[in-house]
Amino acid sequence: MERHRDQDLDQIRKMLLRMGGIVERQIREAMQALVERDAERARAVIRLDDEVDELQKEIDGQCNRMLALQQPMATDLRFVVATMKIATDLERMGDSAVNVAQAVEILNEEPPLKPYIDLPRLALITQEMVRDALDSFVRRDARAALDVCKRDDEVDGLYKQLFRELVTYMIEDPRNITRALHLLLIARNYERIADHATNVGEDVIFFVEGRDIRHSSPDEVHAN
Amino acid sequence: MERHRDQDLDQIRKMLLRMGGIVERQIREAMQALVERDAERARAVIRLDDEVDELQKEIDGQCNRMLALQQPMATDLRFVVATMKIATDLERMGDSAVNVAQAVEILNEEPPLKPYIDLPRLALITQEMVRDALDSFVRRDARAALDVCKRDDEVDGLYKQLFRELVTYMIEDPRNITRALHLLLIARNYERIADHATNVGEDVIFFVEGRDIRHSSPDEVHAN
Repeated sequence: MERHRDQDLDQIRKMLLRMGGIVERQIREAMQALVERDAERARAVIRLDDEVDELQKEIDGQCNRMLALQQPMATDLRFVVATMKIATDLERMGDSAVNVAQAVEILNEEPPLKPYIDLPRLALITQEMVRDALDSFVRRDARAALDVCKRDDEVDGLYKQLFRELVTYMIEDPRNITRALHLLLIARNYERIADHATNVGEDVIFFVEGRDIRHSSPDEVHAN
Repeated sequence: MERHRDQDLDQIRKMLLRMGGIVERQIREAMQALVERDAERARAVIRLDDEVDELQKEIDGQCNRMLALQQPMATDLRFVVATMKIATDLERMGDSAVNVAQAVEILNEEPPLKPYIDLPRLALITQEMVRDALDSFVRRDARAALDVCKRDDEVDGLYKQLFRELVTYMIEDPRNITRALHLLLIARNYERIADHATNVGEDVIFFVEGRDIRHSSPDEVHAN
């Protein structure tokens, strides 16, 4: 029974990491598709959506079976609950990456608005947050998870700066409006991905320490 | 033990409905604040955020304790898992309503852009979806839950229409741009609330029937 349980937990972990790997790829490739105006890359991001959805259902099904049949306790129980939550956030991140890719497809039909400098930076930070959050889960590292949560302010700051910059473009020339709006929606989607990465960080802390730090300021929370 | 369990389940249900009631109020009042240019209403929506966050933590804590100590089975287990997911979606809906209220505060400082006709309609449908989704949970009514999911297309259509309309305003006169952008973000937040209501509908179907209908088109799914 115990060995069976460990095998099941290991299988769940592997599925979650596979899902995380695909979503990280979507997040990275969606920005590459924008920067390189590469329509095929954008389509590839969109195509991965089905696989992500399918993995979420499998993970959820497996976690539910585990709860029903094996009644895990303590850390194992928290692992199963945290995994279900993380899978939900990963799926939404994948949706956001798909939104970005769809906007890229529209933007590719017109000449580029401006060199994209801040946007790739926003995407890069977001991508790092997702990777670090998943790493912290694997390594059961609450301190690393907390570091992820702390980076969310940086992302919010960058997003606000981009927002102001894009509004300026719109006001300067009405012909910029549609393109600037799509870039704004892209920025918004990355900002949302960072929010989800923060949720994952919080779930990792709950899993490792059994503490619920949500809705506390990260600066008030001390890593044990 | 069994009576204890029923009492615990009942307490969880009551907390979730209290949380749902507050979030419904936030969704309604945020739109009222916009239509009536009522800054005090907007602030009241923002103030409710703490209570919603606190309730989510309480619900999650209670569900985790229940899983750990009582090891619920079958419907009870699905009830606990669904409740945790629904609470997560309600919390995000509350965040969206707060985003709306914050945009209203900014918009109130300038003259109104246009009579808001489609936006209140979008808000109303969204609000109905949230209410019906929670009702379907209480009544264990998978068919009503499926009806909620089906309305999401209506919301997406309205959002797209509003998007096009607001872009036209921006192109007509650059002085409209900032206000139109805030209205667009408000519309986007309602569209997101509707997505969360759809998630709740899917969780109710999983709870009642043990089926996972996510990522299927609602038209393919037949209520049993």
